[in-house]
Amino acid sequence: MAVTFDDVARAHQRLAGHARRTPALTSATVDALTGAQVFFKCENLQRMGAFKFRGAFNALSQLSAEQKRRGVIAYSSGNHAQAVALAGRMLGIAATIVMPADAPRVKLEATRGYGAAIVSYDPKTEDREAIARALSVKHGFTVIPPYDHPHIVAGQGTAAKELIEDTGPLDILLVPCGGGGLLSGSALAASALSPGCRVIGVEPAAGDDATRSFRSKTLQTVHNPDTIADGARTPSLGQVTFPLVLQYVSDMLTVDDAALLQSMFFLWERMKLVVEPTGALGACALLEKRLDAKGMRAGVLLSGGNVDLAWAAAQLIASRRGPQAA
Amino acid sequence: MAVTFDDVARAHQRLAGHARRTPALTSATVDALTGAQVFFKCENLQRMGAFKFRGAFNALSQLSAEQKRRGVIAYSSGNHAQAVALAGRMLGIAATIVMPADAPRVKLEATRGYGAAIVSYDPKTEDREAIARALSVKHGFTVIPPYDHPHIVAGQGTAAKELIEDTGPLDILLVPCGGGGLLSGSALAASALSPGCRVIGVEPAAGDDATRSFRSKTLQTVHNPDTIADGARTPSLGQVTFPLVLQYVSDMLTVDDAALLQSMFFLWERMKLVVEPTGALGACALLEKRLDAKGMRAGVLLSGGNVDLAWAAAQLIASRRGPQAA
Repeated sequence: MAVTFDDVARAHQRLAGHARRTPALTSATVDALTGAQVFFKCENLQRMGAFKFRGAFNALSQLSAEQKRRGVIAYSSGNHAQAVALAGRMLGIAATIVMPADAPRVKLEATRGYGAAIVSYDPKTEDREAIARALSVKHGFTVIPPYDHPHIVAGQGTAAKELIEDTGPLDILLVPCGGGGLLSGSALAASALSPGCRVIGVEPAAGDDATRSFRSKTLQTVHNPDTIADGARTPSLGQVTFPLVLQYVSDMLTVDDAALLQSMFFLWERMKLVVEPTGALGACALLEKRLDAKGMRAGVLLSGGNVDLAWAAAQLIASRRGPQAA
Repeated sequence: MAVTFDDVARAHQRLAGHARRTPALTSATVDALTGAQVFFKCENLQRMGAFKFRGAFNALSQLSAEQKRRGVIAYSSGNHAQAVALAGRMLGIAATIVMPADAPRVKLEATRGYGAAIVSYDPKTEDREAIARALSVKHGFTVIPPYDHPHIVAGQGTAAKELIEDTGPLDILLVPCGGGGLLSGSALAASALSPGCRVIGVEPAAGDDATRSFRSKTLQTVHNPDTIADGARTPSLGQVTFPLVLQYVSDMLTVDDAALLQSMFFLWERMKLVVEPTGALGACALLEKRLDAKGMRAGVLLSGGNVDLAWAAAQLIASRRGPQAA
C-alpha cells in the first residue's frame, strides 16, 4: 500500500482538535553554533510526550465500528504503547498493550494511567509479537503496528507538515529514525510542501540498520542493539517504510551514544526542553556537525520527551564524573 | 513613580521582535489533577531562559544616548545578570555584572557568553550593592536594579499580558514572587485585561517576607533565606513593587522546598519543561492544592528554566533515595 501526501493531509484533518499543534522553537545559541537558522519541532510537547500519538490516533480513528467495539492491541516498550492507550481512551476503544516487564517505570505508569490493559512479558524468553497475535486471535483485537502501516506513516507525517507550514520552506530536515514511520512520513510531507528540502534520517550508531539498508538498497536488520535511544532499537525498516525511505529520503547519518547524551542534555540545559535520547538524534547530528548546515534553514524534529528522570540523573552524573556545586 | 497598564503596553511594543512571545501550554494531566483549566506561560522558553529579559530590555532601551554610551551595571546572582548582559549586547550597550563568586556555573557561563564583564565578590564578606555603586560612580555606569524600577516592572508585566491575550480572561493567575517585579507587573496586566482575575503571589516558605508584608501592610524583610528558589532570595519587596502588590494582588501563598522540588520535577517529567525552582513556585501552589482551583481558568507563570543540571540530578537522586532502574 503506497502512502501519499494526500494521506498525510487527510490524517492532519482527522487529528485537528485532538493532537496538539506543537510549537516550533528557535535558539540563538544553536544558530550561532551551527551558522544555520534552526527550527525545532517540539513533539516532546505532543500529547503523551511524543509524535507517536499522531499515527496511533490516525490509525484508530479509521477502524470500523466492529473493530472499535472489539478493541485494539499493540506491542511496545515505549511511546507507541502510550499513544495507542491514549488514542483508545479518547476514541472509546479498549486497548491492550504487550510491554516488557522491564519497561521504564514512567512509561508503564503512563500507559496504565491512560486506561490500557497491560500484558507483561519477559523480553529475554518471550516473543511479544507472538503474544499479541495470540491475544488478537482469541479476543478479536486489531493489531496496531508501531510503524509499518500506511495509517501510522500518514499520521506521523503531520508533524513535518505543521513545521513547514509554520516556518516556510526548509533546506534540510533532520529526523530520528527507528522503524522509519516518522522519517518516511516527514519525507512525504517535505517532498510536497518544501520540494528540494533534503530530508536526513538519523540513527544510533549501534542500530544502524536503516543506514545500511539505505546504502545497500536491501533491507538490513539489527538484533536488540545496545543504545540509549530506546525508540530506535527496532530491528529494521518495514515493508511500508523502506520503499518510502528509498524514494524520499536524501541521506542517513548515525551518531554514537556518548554524543547523543551530550546533545540531549544540551537541549535540556539551553533550550529548557526535556527530550528523550531518541528524540535528540536529529539535533545531535546538527550539533555534532555531522553535516554542514551553514547558511541553511534547518528543521529538526524533537520526536519525544518520555525519559525516566532518575535514569537521566544517573547518566548526567556519570557523564560529568560526579555532581558539581550549584 | 506609579506604574500603569499603559506602561506595560508600551513596554510590549518596545519588546516586539526582540523578546519571544512564549507559548502558553496546557496539560491534560494537570487539568485532571486540579479540576481546573490550566494555562502555563512558558517564560523558561524566553530568551536567556527567564522573564527577566523583558524588564531588562525595556529598561535599557529607554536609556539616553549618553547613558547607553557609558554602559550599565547590575548586581545579580542569576537571571537578571544574564538579562542585562543579553539586552546590553542586543542594544550595543556595555554591561558589567557584579556576581557572587559561588554563583551557579551555568549562570556565570551564560552571562559571560552574552559578552558582559563580570566582577566577582565574596557574598559572605562583601556588599554587592556597594561594589556596584562604587563602579557606577567611577565609570558613569547606570545601575539597572533587578526589580524595583518602573521600567523593570512594566517590562515584566508583558508576560501576563501575552498570556491573557492568548488564552482569554482568567479566574486566577499564580505568579512566583521574589522582589515582586514579575508579580506586580502581572497584577497590573491582569487588572486591565482580565478584571476580576485573582492574582496570587507564591513565595518559598523560608523567604516569606512578601507574604508577611502583604498581611501586615508594612514592609517586612528576610535575610539570606535558605531555599532552593534562588530567584526568590531577595530581602524584601521594593519601594515601587510593594505599593503595587498591596493595590493589585489578591493573596500570597508560600510553599516549602520539598514540595517545590517535587513540583519542579513534575513539570520536567510530565510537561517536558525544564523549569528552575523559583520558576515552579506558582505551579507548586496549584499542584499542592494550596488553593481550590476547581472549575477555574487558571494561569501559571513558569518564570524561568536556568538550573544547573548536575545540581538538579543530585537533588533528584537524593529526593528519590537512590537511582531507579530505567
